[in-house]
Amino acid sequence: MRVFSEQIMAEACRRNNIIRPGVATIMDCAKLSAYLQEQTGIPVIHMELGSPGFAPNKVGIEAEKAALDAGVGSSYPPTDGLPVLKEASSRFVKAFLGLELAPLYHIPTTGSMLGAFGAFAAASQCVPGRKKILVIEPSFSANKQQMAILDIPWKGVEIAGLRQCGLEAGLRAELAGEEYAAIMYSNPNNPSWMCLSDEELKIVAKVADDTHTIVIEDLAYFCMDFRGAGFGIPGREPYPPTVSKYASRYIILLSASKIFSYAGQRIGVMCVGPELYHESYPELARRYGGLGIFGLTLTGGILDMITSGCTASTQWGLAAMMDRSCEGSLDFVADVKAYGDRASKMKEIFLRHGFSISYDSDAEGPIADGFFFTLSYPGMDSGTLVEELLSYGVSTVSLDKMGSSRDGVRVCSSRIQGHQFGLLEERMAAFAADHPVEL
Amino acid sequence: MRVFSEQIMAEACRRNNIIRPGVATIMDCAKLSAYLQEQTGIPVIHMELGSPGFAPNKVGIEAEKAALDAGVGSSYPPTDGLPVLKEASSRFVKAFLGLELAPLYHIPTTGSMLGAFGAFAAASQCVPGRKKILVIEPSFSANKQQMAILDIPWKGVEIAGLRQCGLEAGLRAELAGEEYAAIMYSNPNNPSWMCLSDEELKIVAKVADDTHTIVIEDLAYFCMDFRGAGFGIPGREPYPPTVSKYASRYIILLSASKIFSYAGQRIGVMCVGPELYHESYPELARRYGGLGIFGLTLTGGILDMITSGCTASTQWGLAAMMDRSCEGSLDFVADVKAYGDRASKMKEIFLRHGFSISYDSDAEGPIADGFFFTLSYPGMDSGTLVEELLSYGVSTVSLDKMGSSRDGVRVCSSRIQGHQFGLLEERMAAFAADHPVEL
Repeated sequence: MRVFSEQIMAEACRRNNIIRPGVATIMDCAKLSAYLQEQTGIPVIHMELGSPGFAPNKVGIEAEKAALDAGVGSSYPPTDGLPVLKEASSRFVKAFLGLELAPLYHIPTTGSMLGAFGAFAAASQCVPGRKKILVIEPSFSANKQQMAILDIPWKGVEIAGLRQCGLEAGLRAELAGEEYAAIMYSNPNNPSWMCLSDEELKIVAKVADDTHTIVIEDLAYFCMDFRGAGFGIPGREPYPPTVSKYASRYIILLSASKIFSYAGQRIGVMCVGPELYHESYPELARRYGGLGIFGLTLTGGILDMITSGCTASTQWGLAAMMDRSCEGSLDFVADVKAYGDRASKMKEIFLRHGFSISYDSDAEGPIADGFFFTLSYPGMDSGTLVEELLSYGVSTVSLDKMGSSRDGVRVCSSRIQGHQFGLLEERMAAFAADHPVEL
Repeated sequence: MRVFSEQIMAEACRRNNIIRPGVATIMDCAKLSAYLQEQTGIPVIHMELGSPGFAPNKVGIEAEKAALDAGVGSSYPPTDGLPVLKEASSRFVKAFLGLELAPLYHIPTTGSMLGAFGAFAAASQCVPGRKKILVIEPSFSANKQQMAILDIPWKGVEIAGLRQCGLEAGLRAELAGEEYAAIMYSNPNNPSWMCLSDEELKIVAKVADDTHTIVIEDLAYFCMDFRGAGFGIPGREPYPPTVSKYASRYIILLSASKIFSYAGQRIGVMCVGPELYHESYPELARRYGGLGIFGLTLTGGILDMITSGCTASTQWGLAAMMDRSCEGSLDFVADVKAYGDRASKMKEIFLRHGFSISYDSDAEGPIADGFFFTLSYPGMDSGTLVEELLSYGVSTVSLDKMGSSRDGVRVCSSRIQGHQFGLLEERMAAFAADHPVEL
């Protein structure tokens, strides 16, 4: 039996200016399910929003409090970030990615959201007639909404499609015309949790370099591919794969939100490859003045003009968390491993009730249990599955909204509570009973 | 005698990628003067950057620390802001502007910088073919750089020019063609410290309403026009003039940076008039999905896609400062009055050495001594005056860069230190001696 009637669902949509749950944004799905819970008193199991499920990291909090007491709150932070964070970030990527990159190239941003927004703006404005962005699908839907603000055209292409005639040939077919300013993806992938392997990223870098395309790599779930030997031991291999090892023109995005459970404080770092940072583009000079140098335009001309730097105390907080991680006294991977355990339990329940994993493997084999996974149900398209699951008290988001060619929903493992696994079992039993699968 | 030689200045420009100090942005002037000071050991008197000169407000700091301890740092803040700040801001505008505006219409932003950026994006995308923004000059140059990111065309017009055939006729001549999406100004004005009076704002509102133009009013220097009876007593007139009392479609921008010396923490609030908030624009629906409702698109479709909300602890900090101000136990106007005293002393020194105030009065008479003022010197254009002053160890920014038709520089009174008035006297004596004014 359904938990929420059609009538209650329709009224909730009206109240929240949502046309249908199946076509709503992530934030709208979160709003809608919170509203349903509040109005009816019936708990919803929240799997829609990728918000951390743990308390914020204490090291960060103590460092922020100390910085506030020291009076950092008064002056505008420097355009390209506080040295303390630039230096910590440089040590951090050395320790956990094995990447040598001087502090200059580390630019604090108000979350990776602003990092991506700034990267899109700068990349798409470098060369006239080369504004488009190629998005590897499925993908984080917000990135496309960012492009809508900036009027940037994009095209989505699934990795499976690219691989059909070999990844290199597939990528080359897309990028050879040099109409794209940049190629964008997240690794691990939001929403599917598939990863691009080191070998695949070598190919991405090669084709991008050959076609003068900027690579934008979102590492929001840094070291959270929990397969194999495990990442996250400072200074020791294996390191997570990253295009920054191979590409000349790259931007990588680091975020404190997931790995330090710090989403509320809005802090991240974007790292710009030295070659790209120092490249000079006449079109940037025309639009922004100055000499058109990519890194200086990105910081002084774009990011600083959007937020005037990012919150000083949070820069101190992230610097402290990065430094303690490098020293080995903060094990951020261990801190978030419970997401994998939760995902494993959730998957087991769903699979037992007729669901399948929409994207279940990548070049390295079956995907890990982590922060996100994807679910399909026989005979249901993405929008219908979102709506049906919500009416059984389970809130997810549509894969259709995330550029996927497959029918299904994204599930986040972060916010389910220990006592809710029983409830999930019960509700999915009802769901399966009401939606028999024809054999 | 000059403090910095031509050679040292030229080298400093080269090192900082600046073509000439006279055409540099505010941030570049700050960088350049800091560099000169560091390289030579000779102190520069910093008047270029509008950064607070006091310690950050303690009420905000304590509230942030408590919020951090309470664990607010983990979850993404709501798209349209934390209720605690929305409610405090609603009480604050009632107490200090006499404006009734429900919490829904108060949207926290990562500083007024993001507020302005979001306002420009939303306003310019409502109606196809109506993208342009009319800027009342002189103006904060960063706003135009924001428009460059978003590819928004603008036109600047000085208030003196608008008044030539009467303000209403002047404004009507500009806005009648309905090509402008919005009209933008700051009050008090950055850089000139002139203010638009209540009568003038009534006219702005009338013409804007008649032509369906959105009014964007930046109140960054809230209650800092220190003339007359004085603003800043909760619930008691006089209130600072604001267009929100008269216009149907308005956005006002409040900032913690100046009034609470909180620039480093990046927090402000934008208030959207109810009529505008609820207005539905098909073009917004086309671009962003949903129903095209202005307020919901601005929050969910635009602001949230740039920073995913703003730093949770700073929202608690600003809420506490607003609440304490409303209760009367925090007198934010008294806290910043010293800027007026500094401006008065600075002006006296400059005027005695041949300078004049570029913009010395508005409709209410002579302008107040406050956070900014403007300076001209006979026979010198804006760029030359910036460069000459810098070579005498005084860092300012060019009025030319701020859309002014007058020759001169902007001076900020916030960062001069007590012991530097003697140094300023000395340097300006040398400046006057080396630049004799022909009578």
